Amino acid sequence: MPLTNQQIIAGIEGLLGHVLSDPARMASYVEEPRRRFHVPALAVAVPTTVADVQKLVAWANDNRVPLIPQGGNTGLVGGQVPLAGNEVIVSTTRLQGVREVNAEAGHMTLEAGVILEQAQRLADEAGALFPLHIASQGSARIGGVLSTNAGGVGVLAYGNARALCLGVEAVLADGRLYQGLSSLRKDNTGYDLKDLLVGAEGTLGIITAATLKLFPKPEDYETALVNVATPDDALQLFHALSERAGGRLTAFELLPRFGIEMLLQHGMIERDPAASHAPWYCLIEVSRMRGTPEGTLVDGLAAAVDAGLVADAAVAGSLRERALMWAARENLSEVQSREGASIKHDVSVPIAQVPRLIGEGSLAAARLVPGIRPCPFGHMGDGNIHFNFTQPAGADGKAFMAGADAVHAAIHEIVARLGGSISAEHGIGQLKTALLKQVKDPVALDMMRAIKRALDPNGILNPGKVLV
Amino acid sequence: MPLTNQQIIAGIEGLLGHVLSDPARMASYVEEPRRRFHVPALAVAVPTTVADVQKLVAWANDNRVPLIPQGGNTGLVGGQVPLAGNEVIVSTTRLQGVREVNAEAGHMTLEAGVILEQAQRLADEAGALFPLHIASQGSARIGGVLSTNAGGVGVLAYGNARALCLGVEAVLADGRLYQGLSSLRKDNTGYDLKDLLVGAEGTLGIITAATLKLFPKPEDYETALVNVATPDDALQLFHALSERAGGRLTAFELLPRFGIEMLLQHGMIERDPAASHAPWYCLIEVSRMRGTPEGTLVDGLAAAVDAGLVADAAVAGSLRERALMWAARENLSEVQSREGASIKHDVSVPIAQVPRLIGEGSLAAARLVPGIRPCPFGHMGDGNIHFNFTQPAGADGKAFMAGADAVHAAIHEIVARLGGSISAEHGIGQLKTALLKQVKDPVALDMMRAIKRALDPNGILNPGKVLV
Repeated sequence: MPLTNQQIIAGIEGLLGHVLSDPARMASYVEEPRRRFHVPALAVAVPTTVADVQKLVAWANDNRVPLIPQGGNTGLVGGQVPLAGNEVIVSTTRLQGVREVNAEAGHMTLEAGVILEQAQRLADEAGALFPLHIASQGSARIGGVLSTNAGGVGVLAYGNARALCLGVEAVLADGRLYQGLSSLRKDNTGYDLKDLLVGAEGTLGIITAATLKLFPKPEDYETALVNVATPDDALQLFHALSERAGGRLTAFELLPRFGIEMLLQHGMIERDPAASHAPWYCLIEVSRMRGTPEGTLVDGLAAAVDAGLVADAAVAGSLRERALMWAARENLSEVQSREGASIKHDVSVPIAQVPRLIGEGSLAAARLVPGIRPCPFGHMGDGNIHFNFTQPAGADGKAFMAGADAVHAAIHEIVARLGGSISAEHGIGQLKTALLKQVKDPVALDMMRAIKRALDPNGILNPGKVLV
Repeated sequence: MPLTNQQIIAGIEGLLGHVLSDPARMASYVEEPRRRFHVPALAVAVPTTVADVQKLVAWANDNRVPLIPQGGNTGLVGGQVPLAGNEVIVSTTRLQGVREVNAEAGHMTLEAGVILEQAQRLADEAGALFPLHIASQGSARIGGVLSTNAGGVGVLAYGNARALCLGVEAVLADGRLYQGLSSLRKDNTGYDLKDLLVGAEGTLGIITAATLKLFPKPEDYETALVNVATPDDALQLFHALSERAGGRLTAFELLPRFGIEMLLQHGMIERDPAASHAPWYCLIEVSRMRGTPEGTLVDGLAAAVDAGLVADAAVAGSLRERALMWAARENLSEVQSREGASIKHDVSVPIAQVPRLIGEGSLAAARLVPGIRPCPFGHMGDGNIHFNFTQPAGADGKAFMAGADAVHAAIHEIVARLGGSISAEHGIGQLKTALLKQVKDPVALDMMRAIKRALDPNGILNPGKVLV
């Protein structure tokens, strides 16, 4: 017979010595950034040690109690919050151990609850770079960042969270500990379990610690906000600069003029960071390593001007100017909510298809909603565009959002046709499970289901997320 | 009732229109480079299309016929050759399709039977770089290279085969096709099945095609063979140059003087590539991108001389001198067999531990076998040392090899103590299954077994390899 809610709460209290079950105290764990999901949790457990996580999971497995692993609660697809209402959230926020920081050897081992910004700071203080940068880095935690395979602005040169992770430790569905921490660069002893746990959104195990890669810290950066006429010119510029700078091209982000206008209008940046008006801008950064000469970006831009690709550019002459350019990029998502309702897509396509995605997607949306204002921006160099649409000026937000499904369908159809992905960075969570079933190779879905059954036969780890 | 050998041969003939079962014609498929494994195959199937691979595997699954996927038959741990004698080898050599080469978009899609050297050439002809370089590249094929997650000399900057692969297509144990080809840089739609199939040594599926990453081709290379007094100095030099060159430091290989001496004595290099005598050398390469200045390596070496890390260095002044330096590195394995018997280990440790590995390992082996000649060499920058030992000069090779197990045990004990791996590049195959059981986290082994059962419930794909 299944346990009653009271028995579950008492059981966790008995195991860990504490549990949250009062709705007011659980609020910060169930309210998520998009405010789309509103299902309560049965309880919240906040274990303080890995051993306590193991005890809790083993008990939950024996008693068929569904668990939701949660880090900083910054996920955008509802993976970290309840779906059925009978789940116990397992917050990793108190797993705060910094087990090792070894800049010379190029790695650090942190527990799941360490906040991403703190991880960046730990690396920096040790004289190294941890290059994972996402908008939510002040709250997102290592366990969640890995479970969702976070992306961000450093992916171009350094890879996503998966690529930055050398090994993980995780509590499996039966409570046993997978001890996969490793600082090895090469290890061909069996299946790649690390990469299976990373990005599984907590459905195959609860990551409790990870060994992360550290990189040499660049001496400084060359940063520019570059005017281009079209996304196609942006693409050509990307290729030209890639050839020149190779792995030192550490950011290549696309921004529409419309985004800058909104930022100025809502006072989210102090002044226009661009050299002059243009339909599109590329925020480009080249990292300079110690002892190597400057000028790679400026020389590259000069060549691009000669080639007719670039009309004008603002090159950051100070840290303050650089910060202004990055603020423009980083506030683009936030400023859209100030401007009104918006319909959002986190999609990727092969890099060469980005111009078609933007062109066809903008046209299709305008056909569906006259006056809709496209604001596609983001990681051009990764083929990953946050293809967002702001409501027509002065329109009713609710009425606009009523048409969201049609816009979603149109964009996802184009993405599918171009060989793209309906979730580039944010994952599936509970928001996109139905969509995933429609678009994913059914053989891949069957493989995923078989693996899920094999590693979590009782289905207690984040049920209903990713796979339905 | 299981099929008889005759029924199996006739069955495959019926399915594919051809089959090899004559021992003479099967010889090149069952004889492997190390000449350690001598079990015959029941038959060899050489399908010409992916659809034929699917037909064959579905039939084998229905009839419980064990299959061994094989590429170029260059594996060093017996993963690609029979173990029991009742297996059918499925050679992917005729899957030769070049489905797409798109240098600008940064990827190419090749079928499993394309030879690695041809893949490099295809990239080069398109103006791009495919940076996977291994000694066997003239015979190794894409399917095998991915199934074993091959490493090589480009891993430092570009990663191993797994990191170079964007997506795979594979025939699963039931004959269905997993269509995971993708040129996306970001795709967070479910479990990382690609990385599970890569490195699984053909036990979870037969890779039939892959999308591989292409990189901008460097304009040229700065190459040097640098004298250092100790592996510890080599390590310091590695860190100093990493800081300077970042991702442009594309090779950092360690070579002992003893290796150069053997190469000269056996006439495998035309002259000594080193500037002068030293106990150790580092073969270092920095890639220069188009439009960027020269001198990163030379400046870095000058700083290292000032710091007392480097006594002397030969900087390649021509392509011919560069080729000589690389020939010294690439012939090290081969020259050892000319010098007599040798005991080999493909191990990795955290980079900082490489000096201890070499120091303690050489001492331990000398205690076991007086006069043994250590020849540790390889991928210093990855922490991956081919820790080989040549027989004492003039000793009996057979008697020397009788002591191999004791040397293996001593080296693997040190590797375990230093947090290393008993197989950095070469995989497990059939050679290291027993060793893997001893050294691997038992929870990880259980996860692997569960995944194997989930994806190959009848155990027809490369049985007895990796997992026992």
